[in-house]
Amino acid sequence: MAEQGGNVRFGPDYVRAISPYVAGKPIAEVAREFGLDEAGIVKLASNENPLGMPESARRAVAAAAADLGRYPDANGFELKAALSARFGVPADWLTLGNGSNDILELAAHALVQPGEAIVYAEYSFAVYALATQEVGARAIEVRARDYGHDLDAMAAAITADTRLVFIANPNNPTGTFLPAGQIAAFLAKVPSHVVVVLDEAYNEYLEPAQQYDSIEWVRRYPNLLVSRTFSKAYGLAGLRVGYAVAQPALTDLLNRIRQPFNVNSLAQAAAIAALGDAAFLRESAELNRAGKAQLAGAFERLGLEYVPSSGNFVLVRVGDDDEAGNRVNLALLKQGVIVRPVGGYKLPRWLRITVGLPEENAACIAALETALK
Amino acid sequence: MAEQGGNVRFGPDYVRAISPYVAGKPIAEVAREFGLDEAGIVKLASNENPLGMPESARRAVAAAAADLGRYPDANGFELKAALSARFGVPADWLTLGNGSNDILELAAHALVQPGEAIVYAEYSFAVYALATQEVGARAIEVRARDYGHDLDAMAAAITADTRLVFIANPNNPTGTFLPAGQIAAFLAKVPSHVVVVLDEAYNEYLEPAQQYDSIEWVRRYPNLLVSRTFSKAYGLAGLRVGYAVAQPALTDLLNRIRQPFNVNSLAQAAAIAALGDAAFLRESAELNRAGKAQLAGAFERLGLEYVPSSGNFVLVRVGDDDEAGNRVNLALLKQGVIVRPVGGYKLPRWLRITVGLPEENAACIAALETALK
Repeated sequence: MAEQGGNVRFGPDYVRAISPYVAGKPIAEVAREFGLDEAGIVKLASNENPLGMPESARRAVAAAAADLGRYPDANGFELKAALSARFGVPADWLTLGNGSNDILELAAHALVQPGEAIVYAEYSFAVYALATQEVGARAIEVRARDYGHDLDAMAAAITADTRLVFIANPNNPTGTFLPAGQIAAFLAKVPSHVVVVLDEAYNEYLEPAQQYDSIEWVRRYPNLLVSRTFSKAYGLAGLRVGYAVAQPALTDLLNRIRQPFNVNSLAQAAAIAALGDAAFLRESAELNRAGKAQLAGAFERLGLEYVPSSGNFVLVRVGDDDEAGNRVNLALLKQGVIVRPVGGYKLPRWLRITVGLPEENAACIAALETALK
Repeated sequence: MAEQGGNVRFGPDYVRAISPYVAGKPIAEVAREFGLDEAGIVKLASNENPLGMPESARRAVAAAAADLGRYPDANGFELKAALSARFGVPADWLTLGNGSNDILELAAHALVQPGEAIVYAEYSFAVYALATQEVGARAIEVRARDYGHDLDAMAAAITADTRLVFIANPNNPTGTFLPAGQIAAFLAKVPSHVVVVLDEAYNEYLEPAQQYDSIEWVRRYPNLLVSRTFSKAYGLAGLRVGYAVAQPALTDLLNRIRQPFNVNSLAQAAAIAALGDAAFLRESAELNRAGKAQLAGAFERLGLEYVPSSGNFVLVRVGDDDEAGNRVNLALLKQGVIVRPVGGYKLPRWLRITVGLPEENAACIAALETALK
């Protein structure tokens, strides 16, 4: 066996070629790096709910914390029962994930072999590209239209060896929205052997006029999987829980490769509480609506181009050169404001800013004005 | 797109062929199925710590619960710092997992392509076979010797296309132990292109005379990965946290495909506390030693063959026919005692019984006597 210093390389080329996901900088890390006080730092970098977790979920966590020596329920009986009741689908239409990130990766691992193809849009969520690389699949990245998905081009891009299409609605990091009619028309065109993952991580932030019933499409299409999360509007990002709704054949496949204890006990308990907390969701949506208006108003006043967003974040252009995003980001960090640079998305002139509390948005706007001077 | 009723099959054959992991039955499920009171049920099915979680970890969870709207630290800065200090390795030698199950699967996904081979032992932990199937690899299952790993045969079984060998020490579900000298001799023989995963989930239960320094082997061998968990002796099964120690090249590979937020915030906080709680570990080991003696004494009195165990569970033969395991298991369930049938491990005449509190062990022994009458 080679000892240290050997030049043996492990793993397939396609794994060694992956650039790992870059997360929003944690508050503690920025405090360490820039010598700042944690309490004064504003983090608008990870599309978290500025209200934190609902009080109902906090109580559920406290109640469930007595029994953490036991493994979680591998089948998520009670959380699935709550989701079943909410959506009117049987439990065998549901897959639980360690966040919806887990759902996205389960779909790639369950459905795609090395060399087969996965279709997704330019400027769409980074995990689609990562999941594609992880399974050694061929990425078919379809040019965006107005920063959003071009569904006609995506349908046309599907090849005979395409196994999976990722659609985000709303899309992260651009915030663009696809009206229901466009998605319905797309689903009707996709060949039956291709699975469509409709990633609705930001679904709960949609305006009433935008809302649509994707679960009805799941009833109709055996090759559709709808992915949702408790990390955004439900305020449970730190606990890790998401879910998928799909017909039993597809659900069964995902559950064959799901790690049996992928969703921890507290996440299951908190998700049940949050799912029933309509008042918290309403408050979150209202706060988000007001915050988006606050940010948009400031961007207009500052003459900054931005993409109208249907999520809880806004993509804003902070300069005309390809260093602008990193330059302004650094200037914001020095002032204790954490947002997300999106150079990794080929958007080096832009920043993605999460909608925070009114005072957090104001602090961000003030820091942005200073940074742009 | 095909509508419901279509006969399209999704995913590779090797995924469709997987039989999902069967977890120990949760207490709530047994109560529902057998009409029993949850409070009267004894669960000795999942090798959990009968003391539950340490009080130190409970306090850490309560303190960390304030901030669950935020994503976890994707890099696990503080937990890695604690592990670094404990083992004297830099942070870039550490990978955090959503339980060590996640570590085992990361290794398979990072290192093995469809058609390549993975070596593991007969009667070893079920997740090795599952991870092999998930990546479409060829399983080389090596005949056991006295219910434990035959390391000479495993070394001889390695082929040119073998990428990974799983070794469990102690092994689950048999409890068998490999002395350090045997493992050292094995490591010296394994070709440098083959990664060895040494799964030490039950390491903290080893007797002082059995203990060895596997981290020193990691320093020596770039193709060795040691996997540990907080789910067993540390009492945190419900929170999901494990870790791997390996040199940077191998660690980097696992982190490229690790889901960035795979370990939730409370798990990270609780693991730091538990890692520092030497008194709890000592108490757990002592309780386990006494409980194993209690179970062994009863098995001898009842004339039942068992495999001497170095873990927190004992494999015991409950009959001479291949229905014995299921028959006795059902008889135990009806009495409110949950243990683990191991027919799935090709051990249909045996049951695996987790060491519980003295009164739980006594209840299990009494129920077993009734079941065997």
